[in-house]
Amino acid sequence: MTNLTCLFFLVIIKFTDRVLWLFSTPLAPTSSANAIMVKVVTCTAPVNIAVIKYWGKRNAALILPTNDSLSVTLSQDILHSKTTIAASPDFSHDRLWLNGKEEDITKNKRMHNCFRETRALRKQLEDSSAEPLEPLSTYPVHVCSENNFPTAAGLASSASGLAALVFTLARLFDLPTSTSDLSRIARQGSGSACRSLFGGFVAWEMGSRDDGADSLAVQVAPETHWPELQALICVVDDAKKGTSSTEGMQNTVATSPLLQHRIRDVVPERMRDMKKAILDRDFQTFAEITMRDSNQFHAVCLDTFPPIFYLNDVSRAIIRLIHEYNATSPDGRLKAAYTYDAGPNAVIYAPKQNMKEIIHLITRYFPGADFVDPYNFFPEGEVVGSNLPHTHDKFNQNVIPVFPAGSVSRLLHTEVADGPRVLGKEESLLNEQGLPLRLK
Amino acid sequence: MTNLTCLFFLVIIKFTDRVLWLFSTPLAPTSSANAIMVKVVTCTAPVNIAVIKYWGKRNAALILPTNDSLSVTLSQDILHSKTTIAASPDFSHDRLWLNGKEEDITKNKRMHNCFRETRALRKQLEDSSAEPLEPLSTYPVHVCSENNFPTAAGLASSASGLAALVFTLARLFDLPTSTSDLSRIARQGSGSACRSLFGGFVAWEMGSRDDGADSLAVQVAPETHWPELQALICVVDDAKKGTSSTEGMQNTVATSPLLQHRIRDVVPERMRDMKKAILDRDFQTFAEITMRDSNQFHAVCLDTFPPIFYLNDVSRAIIRLIHEYNATSPDGRLKAAYTYDAGPNAVIYAPKQNMKEIIHLITRYFPGADFVDPYNFFPEGEVVGSNLPHTHDKFNQNVIPVFPAGSVSRLLHTEVADGPRVLGKEESLLNEQGLPLRLK
Repeated sequence: MTNLTCLFFLVIIKFTDRVLWLFSTPLAPTSSANAIMVKVVTCTAPVNIAVIKYWGKRNAALILPTNDSLSVTLSQDILHSKTTIAASPDFSHDRLWLNGKEEDITKNKRMHNCFRETRALRKQLEDSSAEPLEPLSTYPVHVCSENNFPTAAGLASSASGLAALVFTLARLFDLPTSTSDLSRIARQGSGSACRSLFGGFVAWEMGSRDDGADSLAVQVAPETHWPELQALICVVDDAKKGTSSTEGMQNTVATSPLLQHRIRDVVPERMRDMKKAILDRDFQTFAEITMRDSNQFHAVCLDTFPPIFYLNDVSRAIIRLIHEYNATSPDGRLKAAYTYDAGPNAVIYAPKQNMKEIIHLITRYFPGADFVDPYNFFPEGEVVGSNLPHTHDKFNQNVIPVFPAGSVSRLLHTEVADGPRVLGKEESLLNEQGLPLRLK
Repeated sequence: MTNLTCLFFLVIIKFTDRVLWLFSTPLAPTSSANAIMVKVVTCTAPVNIAVIKYWGKRNAALILPTNDSLSVTLSQDILHSKTTIAASPDFSHDRLWLNGKEEDITKNKRMHNCFRETRALRKQLEDSSAEPLEPLSTYPVHVCSENNFPTAAGLASSASGLAALVFTLARLFDLPTSTSDLSRIARQGSGSACRSLFGGFVAWEMGSRDDGADSLAVQVAPETHWPELQALICVVDDAKKGTSSTEGMQNTVATSPLLQHRIRDVVPERMRDMKKAILDRDFQTFAEITMRDSNQFHAVCLDTFPPIFYLNDVSRAIIRLIHEYNATSPDGRLKAAYTYDAGPNAVIYAPKQNMKEIIHLITRYFPGADFVDPYNFFPEGEVVGSNLPHTHDKFNQNVIPVFPAGSVSRLLHTEVADGPRVLGKEESLLNEQGLPLRLK
């Protein structure tokens, strides 16, 4: 190696921290047709669940929203999208495998936006660098991505998936871009993906510019600010596949008279109040706004023509149950808050101290759900679902019936946590030829 | 009889038409303590189903609404409340039997309003008459009322019930009051009852006065204007008894940010458009506004905190089915419109010519419903539910699953029809002692 390439190698190391070089000759000259040069990066990105909902675009191509939104980033230990990207001049073209199945990358306009934007930034870097940089912007890439949860479960897989893609591309290309600037790119892949680039509590500021330059995510508070906040995801089976959110929200914009009122008069105040509630760790305000905003989002779906339904009878029963639980709270304070995205699954936010009671409660009325106990709340011998909230004297046990086993198929206990992570080489989803280790 | 009482008798006959006198000495002097003098009137009043929904009071005591509403009066041959009222100085006090069970009339504030107002009008009549009138305003009454449909079915029984009460009292007292003026009294019994005093298409104008003097019903068009309009009521079983509409609408007023927008910016335009659609017999506009307004009413229920749910999975499936039916209409025109009140039952409005197809369609997906065929649409041998809409080439048979038998328990086929009717003596619900013929 020349001194120059040596220096370049060190710079790369500095910038990329845990970026991996699978081969021992990472800086082999690209002019050598026989040399296989592959740079490979693997990252995970988390799921985020909004407490002020995003619903409606003012520009569908750039994915510019009609209102601000705010979400909580959930632990990647429980739910994540994992993406490995390899770059090589020897690859014939960009290829993509999603959950073990190859997809036609050229047909995915939104993913294409993310490649175009990150490559353009890499190109700038290459052009402006005093030192010659590897022309990664010109190399085809292989992308392999997997969720550790069923895509069909409707758990915001596009947010974590596109966040993982953009974050991994940024690491692959050693982009010095700030997370908020990256979020602007992720936004063009999938709107809510921009919020999955941060941990903790994240606002997506809608911005006002036509080019979307000011429509990006900012961190309201890191996960360390309020680590007691946990979440229980109740996966609700639904025979009917709901309307896709992309299609649904544009129908709402086009047909719902109530949406404009929500955008103009309701959300701005809720954003202010919610940010303050988070900074104050005020669960009462956090919970009330979370529930109200979920309900209003589903209300504007119902005001759409034809109406969009995401909640089913099981979803609605969980809402009733949480209201009964809150209404009978011994000190009159809210103990839990539900929220629902574009599907029937409930996400219940609550302080850690209430979560065991809530898991008992949900399991009591919705028996038979798969439940792993990641935080060891239940000692051996304690049957999940055996206890109703002891201190709630006025709790009406008949508020909802006990549902048939499996109505809630899975319970995922998780918590507020960090943003995307770079993983070690051993976590790669691609083999040494840059092909998936697992195919479906 | 003196000439004077003879004249009075004739006047009574003229005013009351089919008013009944159960005893042969109707004009026996009231001073005679031994004489039993009873005047008895029996009437029916229809159910009305709103196409622009009433939801929210600006004055709960006077039942003054926050917006105009508009309804269609449905045939009393299919659904009605029937009320017999007898007046006698020998009755000890006012008594009331509802569906065969005696109720404490003194505890029913709203019913009390109707008695007070109609007695006051009768008193004015007695005081101002040149001829002495029977002091009916001072006699206790016995009221017996029955619905020909289960109250529990959630079919607007309070509207028809209170309309029947007020209409029967007006006939009992020979009030020369106009129907709109009577509707102002019925409104104080149950808001939507005011609309059941007219046949055809009826607007409840919210008015602006604090005393409610201008909050009353007016007929937009009589039933003869558009007799082709029919309705199919799908009675949907629901395990959970929903929130009462009285309680529910006040929670919406207090907590829904979207309601104010509906009241101010949405309903006035819809009222104008709907009235024009009715006058033009324009089913396309009628259908679209009807469906949109039903959806928006349920949207503001969902925007209430805690949220109110009236639609269940069966209700939502019927909505999907009607949208599929309309979307695949051969000439692109809407063929049916759903609407839902404060409960899970669907009411499907459609021109008569589409109704057979709709009954087949609903029965195909919701088998096992009781169905009487009042208009003889189905010749012997034709199985109800056997046909899908033949001419809808693109109809997706899997738009919803076939539901378990009895999910829709009853189908009631009815049509736009006339207002309250006075019945003959043989229809009385009270015996000669002024006591119910049937008790529960």
